[in-house]
Amino acid sequence: MDRLPGFRDFYPEPLPTPEGWSADLRRHLFTRWRAVAERYGFREYDGPPLEPLELYTAKSGAEIVGQLYNFTDKGGREVALRPEMTPTLARLAAAHERHYKKPLKWFAMPQLFRYERQQKGRLREHFQFNADILGEPDRAADAELIALLIDSLRALGLSAEDFVVRLSSRQAWQDFFARHTTRPDQAYEFYQIVDKLEREPAEVSAPKLEALGLTLEQVRHFIAAGEPTDELRAILANLEARGLGDFVRIDYNVIRGLAYYTGPVYEAFDRKGQFRAIAGGGRYDHLVRLVSGGKVDLPALGFGMGDVVLAELLKARQLVPRWEGRLDAFCLVEDESLRPATLRFIQQLRNAGLTVDYSLTPAKSDRQFKRALELAASHTARLERSTDGELRARLKHLATREERTVSLTDAPAALRQA
Amino acid sequence: MDRLPGFRDFYPEPLPTPEGWSADLRRHLFTRWRAVAERYGFREYDGPPLEPLELYTAKSGAEIVGQLYNFTDKGGREVALRPEMTPTLARLAAAHERHYKKPLKWFAMPQLFRYERQQKGRLREHFQFNADILGEPDRAADAELIALLIDSLRALGLSAEDFVVRLSSRQAWQDFFARHTTRPDQAYEFYQIVDKLEREPAEVSAPKLEALGLTLEQVRHFIAAGEPTDELRAILANLEARGLGDFVRIDYNVIRGLAYYTGPVYEAFDRKGQFRAIAGGGRYDHLVRLVSGGKVDLPALGFGMGDVVLAELLKARQLVPRWEGRLDAFCLVEDESLRPATLRFIQQLRNAGLTVDYSLTPAKSDRQFKRALELAASHTARLERSTDGELRARLKHLATREERTVSLTDAPAALRQA
Repeated sequence: MDRLPGFRDFYPEPLPTPEGWSADLRRHLFTRWRAVAERYGFREYDGPPLEPLELYTAKSGAEIVGQLYNFTDKGGREVALRPEMTPTLARLAAAHERHYKKPLKWFAMPQLFRYERQQKGRLREHFQFNADILGEPDRAADAELIALLIDSLRALGLSAEDFVVRLSSRQAWQDFFARHTTRPDQAYEFYQIVDKLEREPAEVSAPKLEALGLTLEQVRHFIAAGEPTDELRAILANLEARGLGDFVRIDYNVIRGLAYYTGPVYEAFDRKGQFRAIAGGGRYDHLVRLVSGGKVDLPALGFGMGDVVLAELLKARQLVPRWEGRLDAFCLVEDESLRPATLRFIQQLRNAGLTVDYSLTPAKSDRQFKRALELAASHTARLERSTDGELRARLKHLATREERTVSLTDAPAALRQA
Repeated sequence: MDRLPGFRDFYPEPLPTPEGWSADLRRHLFTRWRAVAERYGFREYDGPPLEPLELYTAKSGAEIVGQLYNFTDKGGREVALRPEMTPTLARLAAAHERHYKKPLKWFAMPQLFRYERQQKGRLREHFQFNADILGEPDRAADAELIALLIDSLRALGLSAEDFVVRLSSRQAWQDFFARHTTRPDQAYEFYQIVDKLEREPAEVSAPKLEALGLTLEQVRHFIAAGEPTDELRAILANLEARGLGDFVRIDYNVIRGLAYYTGPVYEAFDRKGQFRAIAGGGRYDHLVRLVSGGKVDLPALGFGMGDVVLAELLKARQLVPRWEGRLDAFCLVEDESLRPATLRFIQQLRNAGLTVDYSLTPAKSDRQFKRALELAASHTARLERSTDGELRARLKHLATREERTVSLTDAPAALRQA
């Protein structure tokens, strides 16, 4: 029986197939994401993977709504597997923001879902590192968040030579649109066209823009001029003060597809342009009000960073750590009469926090030793009875082949030192 | 807008409502589960939260199938949110077991789902620590797994006074049933009756047993006698050798509801009997063959431990760690002309792995200090220009109020020591 198309199984390394997904790599991403978020003072939250459909309809933009993994549940409710985390966060904040001091600095690592009919081989789920700041209208918050985004990628070994954050402004595009058109109600359609500009041929984009009373030239000129707004200047200055200036550049090609952005927006790309966006985000000052039905009004901003593109990039840059066994000791049982004592010894080592494995059943000495090597154990440990009848542990360091005999009491410390 | 009934939001502590769920407590469980699993040499895996419906029908038993959170997806596929992890594990193992040396010792921490119409206030999802051993028919594997179960609970602060593992045998019950009835095809119905014996009144159980040609007395006598099989004796001896004998007792009331168990089965309960089972598991030697359509035959065993009952128990025993801010430094900006330098200093500290926060926008000195206290920062740090024009960091240890001035280069080490 197979898994559903578009979903992933995560196996322990070494992987059975080169194109498979690694539970160890996923954990590596999660560990680094979490560590950097904490360094920045962000706190973890989560919500359900399943939400009421209406949390997304008309809030996230047509594109994401068209790709919803939605269905009717057994109670007749219209529900959807979450396609993004921001509406859930807005819901949580709207319910209990008064309990927390502002600004909230929160992060999550949800699995997200979408359902597109036609796509071949495209995934229907991914994990996404989400970090958001709520309750702070100042551009200093945008800079803090972009710094976190940059440091999340740096923590995985990527440098300014590997990626760049392309910084833009939804507000600047909104002003541009207001200046050049008489159809302010069609702003969202306009953003969609700009969002696709780099991917679509001019023959497709130009007529769409003309329908809104604009020319492709006007739009291209605005992008080429790339004149940063005061807000973007302040963000750049802030990041430069941190020594992160090399990681950012103004690029009005970026506008973000989602409907709810209101201010600075950005996307991180690999410098070689080999992959889709690694991460993206921006300010969405009205979403909490929208989700709370007008009850709570909180300025907000955030970014998301998916695991799939990131894993591809890390593989291409050879930044995926090789999995290494982390076994402190493999315990050998060569004399079965010593098995009960060895079990107690194993328990003692594990109680001390050491990682220990052994052959569950009687096996030949060389097979046990081979298994210790396969598991990349640091040591083998074997109980032996000394001439005075006392049990002692014979430890062998597998890298150096150095051996020594220690008392059972001293064994945990001896194994930990090495 | 509200979340769906039966689903949980996870907030950062301190929680907004006493009945709410804590992302910090969830993480505490995950961290401990993972650490103990690794000590035992278990490797992490995962599968999709959504699986083909047929992975569960007729394999897990009527009870779980009746509670499936299933639906038809947009492609017309019958799918279900996973109600348990074992069929997914069997699917993964069936696909790639040949790649791995036996036995496989694997763990996962999936979110699981069920949909029951009538239940009020009952959750429709929970997280479950799953650990399994595949490819080892010997009872030593059952003992190893039960030891892991015990140590997972001990790692959370629970002792032999708090919980006990009630050990039983599906095989013993199967033999009992074969001896006393002429309807071997109704074994599963029989297991269901035994499984409910402690919860259902005798007037309900007795007629059901009689329909199978058995009396309630026979069943009760078998339970009361509690004669351990050779297999259970071996498991007990193994656990006693480890010094874990106090955590286990034979109890044939346990039989487990799922259809696929074949050997030793067990459930962990709190000693006071206040809560539902904390964990449960057993041997299921035929499931991999069933899931693989006969292609792969691997003996297997495993247990699951949910987060909901466990969290209730930990709360009742006051074993939930109080959340404590882990901020190494809160950086004060009292002179705004020093903000760019302070941003660079913050970046330097975070690069060194320290947890640092600060006021994103200009704020009065006492407000910044108050915020540092709220966040339970270990230190405040403030840049100041010395008489020679050099910037230095003034560190204040908030517990002792001790202050000292260090060079910017020395600041990370100074903060880390304290």
